[in-house]
Amino acid sequence: MALVVQKFGGTSVASIEHIERVAKRIAGYRDRGDEVVVVVSAMGKETDRLDELAKSVGDSDADFRREVDVLLSTGEQVTAAVLSMVLTKMGYPAKSFTGGQVKILTDASHTKARILDIDTDNLRRELSQGTVPVVAGFQGVDSDQNITTLGRGGSDTTAVALAVVLEAKECQIYTDVEGVFTTDPRVVDVAQPLATVTFEEMLELASQGSRVLHTRAVEFASKYKMPIRVLSSFSDAAGTLITNEESHNMEQPLISGIAFMKDEAQLMMLGVKDIPGIASRILGPISDANIEVDMIVQNVAADKSTDFTFTVRREDYERATAILESVAQEIGAREVTGDNKIAKLSIVGVGMKSHAGVATKMFKVLSEESINIQMISTSEIKISVVIEEKYLELAVRALHTAFGLDAS
Amino acid sequence: MALVVQKFGGTSVASIEHIERVAKRIAGYRDRGDEVVVVVSAMGKETDRLDELAKSVGDSDADFRREVDVLLSTGEQVTAAVLSMVLTKMGYPAKSFTGGQVKILTDASHTKARILDIDTDNLRRELSQGTVPVVAGFQGVDSDQNITTLGRGGSDTTAVALAVVLEAKECQIYTDVEGVFTTDPRVVDVAQPLATVTFEEMLELASQGSRVLHTRAVEFASKYKMPIRVLSSFSDAAGTLITNEESHNMEQPLISGIAFMKDEAQLMMLGVKDIPGIASRILGPISDANIEVDMIVQNVAADKSTDFTFTVRREDYERATAILESVAQEIGAREVTGDNKIAKLSIVGVGMKSHAGVATKMFKVLSEESINIQMISTSEIKISVVIEEKYLELAVRALHTAFGLDAS
Repeated sequence: MALVVQKFGGTSVASIEHIERVAKRIAGYRDRGDEVVVVVSAMGKETDRLDELAKSVGDSDADFRREVDVLLSTGEQVTAAVLSMVLTKMGYPAKSFTGGQVKILTDASHTKARILDIDTDNLRRELSQGTVPVVAGFQGVDSDQNITTLGRGGSDTTAVALAVVLEAKECQIYTDVEGVFTTDPRVVDVAQPLATVTFEEMLELASQGSRVLHTRAVEFASKYKMPIRVLSSFSDAAGTLITNEESHNMEQPLISGIAFMKDEAQLMMLGVKDIPGIASRILGPISDANIEVDMIVQNVAADKSTDFTFTVRREDYERATAILESVAQEIGAREVTGDNKIAKLSIVGVGMKSHAGVATKMFKVLSEESINIQMISTSEIKISVVIEEKYLELAVRALHTAFGLDAS
Repeated sequence: MALVVQKFGGTSVASIEHIERVAKRIAGYRDRGDEVVVVVSAMGKETDRLDELAKSVGDSDADFRREVDVLLSTGEQVTAAVLSMVLTKMGYPAKSFTGGQVKILTDASHTKARILDIDTDNLRRELSQGTVPVVAGFQGVDSDQNITTLGRGGSDTTAVALAVVLEAKECQIYTDVEGVFTTDPRVVDVAQPLATVTFEEMLELASQGSRVLHTRAVEFASKYKMPIRVLSSFSDAAGTLITNEESHNMEQPLISGIAFMKDEAQLMMLGVKDIPGIASRILGPISDANIEVDMIVQNVAADKSTDFTFTVRREDYERATAILESVAQEIGAREVTGDNKIAKLSIVGVGMKSHAGVATKMFKVLSEESINIQMISTSEIKISVVIEEKYLELAVRALHTAFGLDAS
């Protein structure tokens, strides 16, 4: 017998039939004697519908944000009520809670509020009576009882926060995929679900595109050492357990997964005088234009001049090039060049920290496939390379096999 | 400068365009310096949609009612948020309130809660800052912070209750008709909107079919002497003012309106021995069968036997006849007969209290049209007759003209 927090996302509660399936899963845990606290998102596309209603009034003016929260929070409230009815009808007494009823105290930053405190009295009282509390995710109240919402991925954050304050055994996040994969299964069919992954790895994998769980919830869980299990509400697979601990499995491969990002572009300024402050002279005007810069690499050449390279989203390529050409004239750089048909690929794994050979192996695999590496950047648990986009799938497949990630 | 409470029903807020029209009306009052507290219903058919969602789970089990309230209350919350946004965008600062945020304290009878107390502090604070509070109608919270709803006509009740506690000048109920009419305009084209009507008259007119306002809200307003104005959100007509006071207008006609009910049936038991308790011997089995009885008339005949007559809904005619025949045998009545093609027609007016000639005039008008009266029943401000249904429209038209209700 243990306490688990279970969060069901929009696709898991899209219809009455979906909600009945979710209820059966919860009932299974109750039958085994576990205590369950449930967190739900809005049904299917309900949040989109409410969002459009808000947008039909006008731009998201700061004055509107209080009311946007009042509007959006109804989506989760509806799901919580319906799931509570279904559970009660099945013989498992349940009770819905809005964020305010729990209560989940947040700051007053409407549409992107942060949780300050959670009162566990009401939930513990229901648990002690054998009731399943069904909490509307994504929402709270500020100290003046105004309804607030937590922004993107808010229901995941609600679930993790409740798991932390209730000292749950784990926080289960149900979604429409079977966990965290070695790489994006929509793109590469050799992708495999991972049994375990660390928070660090998860953050690297998620921020690179394997989105199953919001970064903010992962950071929160990592901070409070709350194990998260990501699993599908449509299957009985065990999903992926995300913890702070590295796996001690001897068979654990050196890397956990491969993340990638398409639709990137690379810009280079060649022959730049290597003097202090040159990087900000180059990147300042780019960020002033609200262009997001991802990888940055600088090499010092033999003649005391340097080549400066960085990547941006492909849609920003033309604007960034124009800005860079004007900067190049000012600072007397030799040439501006670029490539808008590139992709970024990263191998991620806590195992590589203690294995110097991982990078060498990666480069060798790519070279054997005659794939040219245009940029390299490394961190403790990640090695990222930029390659021509047309080779991306080939590269992922080759690395997936070489690092032992294919199904055995 | 005065404080008014304005309630907008579902058809008045059915779309963003409708809500913008409503906002302009509120803005007009603000421009004239009035303070406005707004109460809204759910948008268009939203309550029906949520109701179907609840029903899709199963029958309205008592265990479900708490959750049905959680579900249904979101409809009004959405409207309150959207109208607040629209008003704010137009330059009239507004702020939505759920029943819990006001707070409107009710008993714990989910789906049919009654208001116990209303805290006016939050609303007064907003009013003093020049903000328009927009309150989600139909809802409150019980003493344990559970969301409750007030049942049918609940938003009207919210509006009247707020008007009473805030000591408003009047409570305006906006709907899709131009007020209370002399008779049902859908059936008789000579129907005219009334400038004023008393609560008593309104109750008689409404319970007879001219439904524009829920009886419960009218009773509430009458009890606390809060003037209600019923008017259309689609026109600039002044609507109908409902008060406790009789009009002192010399031109005021003797009667205010004509109510009628079709689809009625009449049952007669002839030659009943006139002994104490005979009425309950006859009607007891009828009400045991859950058949609703409307008019009841009993005459004592010369030979100490009596004829007993009453009306029921036409759909109950066959069942009521069968029951009556078995009762007639038991008590030795002479005959059971009936008519299932009748209608009931009532003239209503506080003016008739002091004018004995009203009944005589009514009977004369009907007689001139050769309409036979099958039953008569009178109260202080109402005279009801039963006639053949096929003469109903002719009768309403003739009385409407005779009592000076036609447009001048």
